[in-house]
Amino acid sequence: MEESEFISILTDMLGFAPCNIVYYKHAFMHSSCAGSDLKAEYNNERLEFLGDSVLSTIVSEKLYKMYPDKQEGFLSMLRSKIVQRPTLNALAVKLELERLVIIKSDVVACHSNVYGNAFEALIGAIYLDKGFHACSSFMNDVVFAHYLNIEKLQELELNYKSRLLEWCQKFNLKLEFELVGEEMVNKNDHMFKYKVLVNDVTAGLGNGFSKKEAQQYASHEALNFVRRKPEVFCRKG
Amino acid sequence: MEESEFISILTDMLGFAPCNIVYYKHAFMHSSCAGSDLKAEYNNERLEFLGDSVLSTIVSEKLYKMYPDKQEGFLSMLRSKIVQRPTLNALAVKLELERLVIIKSDVVACHSNVYGNAFEALIGAIYLDKGFHACSSFMNDVVFAHYLNIEKLQELELNYKSRLLEWCQKFNLKLEFELVGEEMVNKNDHMFKYKVLVNDVTAGLGNGFSKKEAQQYASHEALNFVRRKPEVFCRKG
Repeated sequence: MEESEFISILTDMLGFAPCNIVYYKHAFMHSSCAGSDLKAEYNNERLEFLGDSVLSTIVSEKLYKMYPDKQEGFLSMLRSKIVQRPTLNALAVKLELERLVIIKSDVVACHSNVYGNAFEALIGAIYLDKGFHACSSFMNDVVFAHYLNIEKLQELELNYKSRLLEWCQKFNLKLEFELVGEEMVNKNDHMFKYKVLVNDVTAGLGNGFSKKEAQQYASHEALNFVRRKPEVFCRKG
Repeated sequence: MEESEFISILTDMLGFAPCNIVYYKHAFMHSSCAGSDLKAEYNNERLEFLGDSVLSTIVSEKLYKMYPDKQEGFLSMLRSKIVQRPTLNALAVKLELERLVIIKSDVVACHSNVYGNAFEALIGAIYLDKGFHACSSFMNDVVFAHYLNIEKLQELELNYKSRLLEWCQKFNLKLEFELVGEEMVNKNDHMFKYKVLVNDVTAGLGNGFSKKEAQQYASHEALNFVRRKPEVFCRKG
């Protein structure tokens, strides 16, 4: 692709003219095309590393301000839904990133996250080229405005309670939910607080306006915990 | 504590005068002191959610620029060492955050991450009060300049290979390391690429200038992977 065409597609996509094109070229260069050269600058993994955090910050701020009355459990679960690979892959397809990504054709099939990863690398490239606020504007004015509906994602049912149950069954662990708080937070709303116990160890807490919601948040926290520290819960196999 | 004293301590700590004090008050309010009120605004967990991502972005940029020749595996491992709870807890102690955190005294003992969490919430508060660049300046001019030595942390031996081995033994999984690439990247440096197989499934890849280094990065990636997706590797217990 001619450089002028690359810049033109990019400018249309981003809503601003990029300055330092090299960052974007790296962002769209998959490691399969770095030849046999393993040097850091020839693929997009470093930019993906950077973009991943920048993206998380912008999403976190967006959710923090969008849901002033929601607890951390809700925000954390919704952020997971936004930054998870299936969401980012779908977003990359909508943005038509495949027009820009350089990858060996036989690699695509076995690297299904190529485009989602390239999206993160693109955020990293914008960050280095134009700074944090340009990333934030791109995400808000382009991505959230046209391609990614947060409210729709919110409805997406990621059943953390089922996943936790499955995880515990796999490793023969006892799973219990315990209601540890319940009260009126205002005239109409009831707040429930649940504790999740895995093999009698507290693995997560969650607050919600229904028992189901509170258990979901508690399960989400517990899943993160048991995956990070399985040794706390598991007997030697 | 008098408000003037609170502001004075904070100003000394941050190197600038805070504007909207309410954010900082929330940042230092542990949930144990939100009384029986479970409403979102009365504890620091929402700010911690936000600060966690902001911190990760600042650390990622710092490492990206500090180590231009390092691969993603190295950057990712070093970032983990910086944002992990033991590091942040120790940092919070050096910053004397305990002078500002409001917590029930009987809670401290069983919530050992209180101060590390409060540090993240503080970053969230600075972000809302003064924006991204103020957070970045605080981290660079105060934290990295005086309290957190990245090069020393780099030497900290977090043995991911041992942890992975332990994890696999716990669940009776086969673990293999396979050398999949080896070449000269310049006149003096040899680059090794290792693949980690857990029960014959590829779980991680790592590049390094020694076999040991490459295996460490590959193990770090594999640990993240097996913890996120144990179902790929594990037989029903």
